[in-house]
This record gives sequence, C-alpha cells and structure tokens, in this order.
Amino acid sequence: MKPPAPPKKAEATLETMRKVFTLPESDDSTLAKLDREISENLVGFLRDRIVAGDIAPANLEQDFLETKIPDDPLFVAEQTEFLLTKVVSQSVHTWSPYFVGHMTSAIPYFMVPLAKIMVVLNQNLVKIETSKAFTPLERQVIGMLHRLVYGETAACDDAFYDRWTQDFHQSLGNLCSGGTVANVTALWVARNKLLSPKGDFTSISDDGLAAGLRAHGFDELVVLVSKRGHYSLRKAADLLGLGRKHLLAIPVGDDHKVDVSAMARVAREQRARGRGIVALVGIAGTTETGSVDDLNAIADLAAELGCSFHVDAAWGGPTLFSATSRRLLSGIERADSVTLDAHKQLYVPMGAGACLFRDPAALNAIETHANYIIRAGSRDIGKHTLEGSRPGMAMLLHSGLRILGRRGYELLIDLGIGRAAHFAEVIRASDDFELISEPELNILTYRYVPAAAARVLERGDTASRAEANRVLDELTESIQKRERARGKTFVSRTRFEVARHGGEVLTVLRVVLANPLTSPQILSDILDEQRGYAAELLESEGYQRQLDELSARLG
Amino acid sequence: MKPPAPPKKAEATLETMRKVFTLPESDDSTLAKLDREISENLVGFLRDRIVAGDIAPANLEQDFLETKIPDDPLFVAEQTEFLLTKVVSQSVHTWSPYFVGHMTSAIPYFMVPLAKIMVVLNQNLVKIETSKAFTPLERQVIGMLHRLVYGETAACDDAFYDRWTQDFHQSLGNLCSGGTVANVTALWVARNKLLSPKGDFTSISDDGLAAGLRAHGFDELVVLVSKRGHYSLRKAADLLGLGRKHLLAIPVGDDHKVDVSAMARVAREQRARGRGIVALVGIAGTTETGSVDDLNAIADLAAELGCSFHVDAAWGGPTLFSATSRRLLSGIERADSVTLDAHKQLYVPMGAGACLFRDPAALNAIETHANYIIRAGSRDIGKHTLEGSRPGMAMLLHSGLRILGRRGYELLIDLGIGRAAHFAEVIRASDDFELISEPELNILTYRYVPAAAARVLERGDTASRAEANRVLDELTESIQKRERARGKTFVSRTRFEVARHGGEVLTVLRVVLANPLTSPQILSDILDEQRGYAAELLESEGYQRQLDELSARLG
Repeated sequence: MKPPAPPKKAEATLETMRKVFTLPESDDSTLAKLDREISENLVGFLRDRIVAGDIAPANLEQDFLETKIPDDPLFVAEQTEFLLTKVVSQSVHTWSPYFVGHMTSAIPYFMVPLAKIMVVLNQNLVKIETSKAFTPLERQVIGMLHRLVYGETAACDDAFYDRWTQDFHQSLGNLCSGGTVANVTALWVARNKLLSPKGDFTSISDDGLAAGLRAHGFDELVVLVSKRGHYSLRKAADLLGLGRKHLLAIPVGDDHKVDVSAMARVAREQRARGRGIVALVGIAGTTETGSVDDLNAIADLAAELGCSFHVDAAWGGPTLFSATSRRLLSGIERADSVTLDAHKQLYVPMGAGACLFRDPAALNAIETHANYIIRAGSRDIGKHTLEGSRPGMAMLLHSGLRILGRRGYELLIDLGIGRAAHFAEVIRASDDFELISEPELNILTYRYVPAAAARVLERGDTASRAEANRVLDELTESIQKRERARGKTFVSRTRFEVARHGGEVLTVLRVVLANPLTSPQILSDILDEQRGYAAELLESEGYQRQLDELSARLG
Repeated sequence: MKPPAPPKKAEATLETMRKVFTLPESDDSTLAKLDREISENLVGFLRDRIVAGDIAPANLEQDFLETKIPDDPLFVAEQTEFLLTKVVSQSVHTWSPYFVGHMTSAIPYFMVPLAKIMVVLNQNLVKIETSKAFTPLERQVIGMLHRLVYGETAACDDAFYDRWTQDFHQSLGNLCSGGTVANVTALWVARNKLLSPKGDFTSISDDGLAAGLRAHGFDELVVLVSKRGHYSLRKAADLLGLGRKHLLAIPVGDDHKVDVSAMARVAREQRARGRGIVALVGIAGTTETGSVDDLNAIADLAAELGCSFHVDAAWGGPTLFSATSRRLLSGIERADSVTLDAHKQLYVPMGAGACLFRDPAALNAIETHANYIIRAGSRDIGKHTLEGSRPGMAMLLHSGLRILGRRGYELLIDLGIGRAAHFAEVIRASDDFELISEPELNILTYRYVPAAAARVLERGDTASRAEANRVLDELTESIQKRERARGKTFVSRTRFEVARHGGEVLTVLRVVLANPLTSPQILSDILDEQRGYAAELLESEGYQRQLDELSARLG
C-alpha cells in the first residue's frame, strides 16, 4: 500500500507570484464557480449562501482572532472556503426585501458585472494619467447630478453646463466615498469662504483658523442645523476646528422639521456675540424620520444673513426625480452646496457620495497642487477633492442614471413613498402599534404598545406615563434585538423626543422603504413577527406585570 | 410587405424596475459575455478592450458633454456598448507591465471575483447591523496590519493582540478610502491629543481649536515634515485649521531624506515662539523618490519634544515584509500612528487605505455617537472613523494577506527593489541618460541628457548650465507627454531641487516598479522608446540647436 501523499501546500515563488497576476483559477475552482453562480443567479446566491441565524457577536468574533499574517501563502480555494463559511454565510442580507431597517438596500443586478469591470480596469481618478476617459466621464456624472439639483434655475441653463461641465479649472462638485466626506467638504468650503482674505490675512488655507478669526474679529465660528442633523456634521465640526458645541442644534416641530424662526433667533444672537456663521444646514430627508426641512425658509434666512446654505440631501436628494414629491425639496436649488449619497437612493454599491456646488468656482477655496500630479492647469480632478486616490465609481453612477433613467428613479422613489404611506395607515389602524413619526418620504418610526400601556398613556398622571414609557423603551429595544438576532427580518431603532408624549425621549422602531421588492404583505408579516416577540418578551421579561401594575393604579 | 417594426425602446414600469433588482441579463447579452470574458481571460480582456492611442483630452471630452439625465431608460446592452467603445477602450491600462509611471499597478486576479462577491454582499462597515461578520473580520485585518508595524515591540506581544483586536471599546486603527483620509485621521488625532482638556477647556472636539489654543497658550500649531511630504498633508493642515504655512517643510539631504537636525532646530525655534507641535511626520517611501527618512532619529526627536510622531508609509509600509529591506524602516514601530495604503503595495483594488495607532485608546480622541447606530458601547466600527458608510474592502485585504502570505509580499517587494537597483545600473551605464535619484526602494528618477547638454553641464558656467537645464526641462516634459500620448508605455514626471546641479529645480522622469511582470527587457525598451522621442523632439522643437549653441560657446 502506498503511503498517503503529503498534504499539498501553496508555495511563494517568483513564478507563483507572477501567476497570481495573470492566470485565473481553473474553471472548476471554488472561486470560479462562485463567480458563475453570481452571474447566473444572484438572488439564489444570496439566499443560499447567507445563513440567517442567531449568533452572538462575541461568538462570531472567535473566527477572527488570529493577527499573525501567515508566512506561507494559502491556496485560493482554502481562503475562499474560509470566506464562504465564516464571512459570506455570516453577512447581512442587505438585498432582502425583509430588511427594512437601514439605508443599505438591494442594487440593480447590472451593477455587479459593471463593478467587476471597474475593478479590473482599476483606474485612479485623482489624475487623468491613471484614468483617461474616466476623468471626463466623472465630470459628466457630476454635471448630471448638478443639473438634477440646480438645472431648473435660470442660471443653470444649457449654456451653463456647456461652459462648466468639462472646464478643468473649476468643478461643479466632487464624487467621494460617501455623505460624510461630502458634508465635511461642503463645510470646509463654507468655512474657507467665510474667512476670506483680509489685510495681512492671505487665506485660511494658508494661515489657519486662528489667524482667520483674528482677521475677521470673530470669537468663534458656528454652524446651525436641526437637532435631527446627521452625526457626520459633528465630525466635521471637530475636524474643521469649530468644536462640536459650535454646531448648534436647533429645535424641531412636531413634524421633525427645523424651527426656522428658532434658527433665525439663534443666528442673530450668535452674530451679536461676535460669532461667524459658517453655514445654515437644511436637511432633505433626516436619517431618523425622513423629514425634509423648509428649505426655502432656510434659504431666505441665509440670504438675509449673507451666509452659506448647505443642504444635506444624502438620503432625500433623489426625490427630485419624482414629479409628485419633488416640491418637498423646493428651495434646494438655492443652496450653495448639496450632499447626495449615491449608495443610498441612486442604488450604486457602497461607497459613493457626491457634493455639488452651485458656484463652479467654490471648490477653488480648497485647491491643492503637487509637482508630479494635480499641477495647476492640469485636467486632474484631484485638485479639488478632499480624498486623493479614488476608484472609477463614476462608471456605475453613469450607468444607473442612464439605464434607470429619470422615469426609473421616479418609479422607485414614488414606490417607496407610497409604501411608507400605506404602512403608516396599517400601523394607525392597528390596536397594538403606535405610529411615532408620519412618513414624509419613505422612512417612518413606530412602536409596539400593548393595551395596558395604552391605558396608562391615555389616563395616567405624568409619573406613571413616564414609567410606562420606560417599560416600553425596554420592550422596544428587546423586540428590535430579538428580531435582529433571529435574522429573518430587520428593522432598526433610534431615540428622540416625541412631541405628543410631552417631548419625552422615546425608543422607537425605524423602517426605511427603499427596496422595490418590499411588498405590503412583507410589511404585515414584519408587524406579525414583532407582535410575536412582544408577546414572548412581555411575559418573559416581566414587562406585562409592570404595565399591569401601572394600569391597576389608574383605578 | 409588412412595415418595419418600430425600434424597441426600454420602458420604465414598476415591473421592469423590479426586474433589474433580481434578474441577470440573458446569457448572450453583451454584459454577461463581458463578465465571462473577464473570468476566462482577464489579461486578454485588458489587452483587447483597451485601445492605446493618441487622443487629445479635449477630443476625449466630446463624448461626455451631455448632462441631461435621459427620461426613459436605456437598454443595458446600449449602455454597455457605450462604455465599451467610449470608456473601457479609452481607459488607462494600469495592469500593463509597460506602465511604470504611477503607483497604480496590476492586482492579483483573485481580487476580481472576490470584489464581485463584496459588491453583491454590499455590506456597510459603519455598523454591525449592516456588516455582521465583516465587523470582526475588519478588526482582524487591522490587527494584522498593526502587528506588521508594531508586532516586534515588547508591548505588542500575543497578549496585546488577544486583548485589543476585538475589543470594541477601542480601535487599533481604521480602514479607509486611502492614504489621504489616513493622514488626515492621524493628524486629527494628534491635534486633539495635543490640545488636551485643561481647566475650563473640556476638549478640542467640543470646544474647538481657538479655545484650545487659548487654554494651552499656543500662538499657532505646526506640523513638521520633509519637503518631500505628500500633498495630502497640506490638505490636512487646511482642513484641521492649522493653515498650510504651518506645515513646515524641512530640507532634505542629497539622499532625499529629511535633515533631522534641521527639523530639531525648527521645532525648538517654533516652540520658543509659543507654537504647539502637533506632530513630526516621517516618510517611509516618498512619493517622488521612494526615499525613507531616518525614522529612529525622528522618533528620538519626538520623544525629546514630547510630541506625536506620525509615519506616512502609504507607499513603503509593505517593505516590512522584506527580511532584507525592513531595516530601512527601523523606528516605524516607535510611531504613534502609521499610514499604509492597501491599494498600492498590498495590491488590493482602488480605494483602500489604513491608519494604525500604537495606543488602542488613541482613536477615542475623535469618537462620535448617534442615536440609531454607533451608540456608546456598541460594536460599531463607525464610532472611530472619519468616514461613515464604507464597503467591505476588509475581505479583499484579508484575502491578499492570506493568499500571498508574508513570503509572497516579500518576494514582490524584493523584486521591485531589485528591479529598481538594476534599472539604476542601466541608466548609469548609458551615455545619454542621467540618474537623478538613487532608488532606495522601488522608485527612481532620471532624465535624458544628449551629448551637447552633457558638455555644457560639465564645463559651462553657471548661466549656461542653468540655460541647458531649462532646455532639458522642456525636453523631459515633451518626452513624457509624447510617450503618454502614444500610449504604449508610461512613466511620470515631477520637479524637485537636485543637489548635484547646485540645488536647481529640475524636471525629471519618474519610474515606480511594483508590477512583478515588468522585466529588465521592458525597462530597456522604455529607454529605447524615450531615446526615439528625444531624437524627434531635439530636431523638431529646436532643442538640439539651442544646446549646440550653448556647447559652442564653451570654446
């Protein structure tokens, strides 16, 4: 009998290293098969390869503890097997129409082979020498998005786009990795514009913030935004040296829209205290409730104050495709800058965002040069971006905009808004759920409220109402965690003050309806599943007993 | 006779919109065919689909002027056809071993199907609810990179990595879109650390830069780096409010390494003027010449001054894999933070970078929370990152590190360094090329110097030498542009002061040798091609006549 052959081991030789740069795995390798499986049946791949299941994160971590990089190479097949069993199987099914908790949704299937082409070409958009046609392509995409936002104003006519889209001395905006970089870029430009050259002070870019404050006689700089503003604005305030406490959170009304008269009051008061206003920020689709601020009112205020006006439309921007709903964003075309996320409602893969500027010269406020690329007068886009090297995501965005077209996006947007309105109806009509925020776009919040709690909230005194809400907060959080752990469906949760509960901060469930495959039936199923968890938890965690006691005290 | 059928047009209906989220194109569609073509013969796809050719950028732009988003959808096939003829064919062949001008090179073929899996899964790493196993996977990858940099220090033993890699209260670093975001993050952390809480001043994050300067009695803040520092540091200085003139460019020696005694002098002088030192920055692989600063000497100085020490190892970091060359980076393990680019010498696709911190608590200086994700105490990585939503690039990095292994990367690194040394020999041995910067890693610079110019440079007076160098600058730039336009091979160009030419700023050709398929023969071919362009240009542009006149004056 022959002894068993020694186990085969991958070897690192110059020859094998050169091969990994040129030769695909053989047709019957695991990786080649997966590649075909995705091409032939993407939905099946996701359904079969992702194992929904209740694994505690701490247990999940056990497979990822080793930090020594192996000395010798692994076979591709071995790594692929590891990824399949430990990573792919334990990833989140973001394409599932049952996952309506976050802003990451399914994407059109054609994005997948196009992304493969993008990776194969491996262009770097920082400069034309590593991107060639991708550079004018990206400028075109920025022009298209700019036109979506500003194209109905008198200034932005055909001649405007003919003049500026491909003019490499200016930029109508940036593509970037996501909304955070977009918001940071917008406030960076606004800060630098506010602290304009003055006397000895040549520019904030060169001389810095402290010198700029001195030159302009400002005590501090502030940014004003609704308290529903995205957390990336807090990062921006830190990064830009303003300080997060100078990002002033303005109260919102019952409709979660910023109180513009409060914003005006705060702005005037800040100015009287010697503070410079970097920007007023309006939100077109708050992350938590999908609400859109009164952008025209903020634009009026910004005009009166003579300060920059930025709109964070990371979520809601594509609502501009909808003939019915675009009026909600009226006033966005008066913004100096607008953030849009492409990996959200433009349905391109993670991570792609954009920041658009009304004034083609605005980005000159942050222009940077080097000796080997992005030289003055060059066509290199990197002159005007916060990031350096960037991938060719413009190709995917370009394809989405053309393959779906305005009507395609309009249908998707209208569908989501319609679904949210319908779901709100269903929640309102049910005895045991409470609608917390009315959907204006395709986001809404709600919570489960059992009969005993409803009685206390209706008839109890302040103290017992507060107590009932504490129990409901725990219940809501537990329902969300149990649902997430079971892995069949997913909604998210957040906390904010709810006007009709005396402004108390409550924990609520949050639903984002961007996947066109999420049907009314699925939404009903989700409520039923949550009812089931609620029943379990009311019993097992003693919430029912606590609520019954509160209810009994009503007499 | 039947009339011809009206042309088919794509339609936007709810049904077609739902289909694009679920159904792949039919097997014989253009896109499906391309997908298979890449899987079966990636090298052939790139060779056949990219058309090298001399198209002026202004002509290229003609295909990308339209900024109206079409109302009706395009068929996928129509868009694919457009991309093939106008974008793919006119992109840069970054995989070509003849393209040795920039830092974007070929990547191992397995990255392509893995990237497809990444796109299909479409995870968002900002939070565990949209990334599940990808979150501990990313922490593992950060641990692996951290260990590559710090793993040989006494503090960073097995127990250190067991303790911190998966501890979600801290982070050993960030993955991000690239080296620019990494450098910005590092200096952000360093700035916030310097302006620590003091009296009424609670933190720079909250109170801002101006209050921090007042609390600490600093006039301004400065960052010190060699004049070869990457331009992203200038962006960081602007963004963080320091001002670019407070990024102090320290002279370099003939070897392009920072003059550490000059750095010390400047640092002490700045401190005496009441300025706070945010960080000393060392470079491990300058972008232009691939030189590595004396990191130990900078670490000593930082220790003496008690300030942060950051190393920009975006290019050179993976040299740590090389047993022979890792000594060049000695001292990097003493840095507070280190930037590494994954889309450079870790050979993952665009755009992936990392910033590592020796102290697991360092990133707490920029921690951010929100109500719906990245809550305090959550496992969400987004608490500690500049960016928000981010893709699952960690999977590609993890695969590169394991499939190539330490030995695989070592071979690639050693190969590039060896090739550069060989190419330098060839240039030195040739009569008509001048080696400008000796390669320390795998980057070198040189220029074409015809005989007449060589004579003037050797025997001429200051004025005629300067004049000859002006002619050579033009010649070098023209050679580089002609070579780029012809599209068969590519080198880049830059400008810096050259010690052996009396510190004159000269235009030079720059070569980056990271593609393992770039052979000595290819490098010879590139020199021959450049000789050919030089001969053409000397004649057609009158450079030869100018140089002959200068030479004749020597008498």
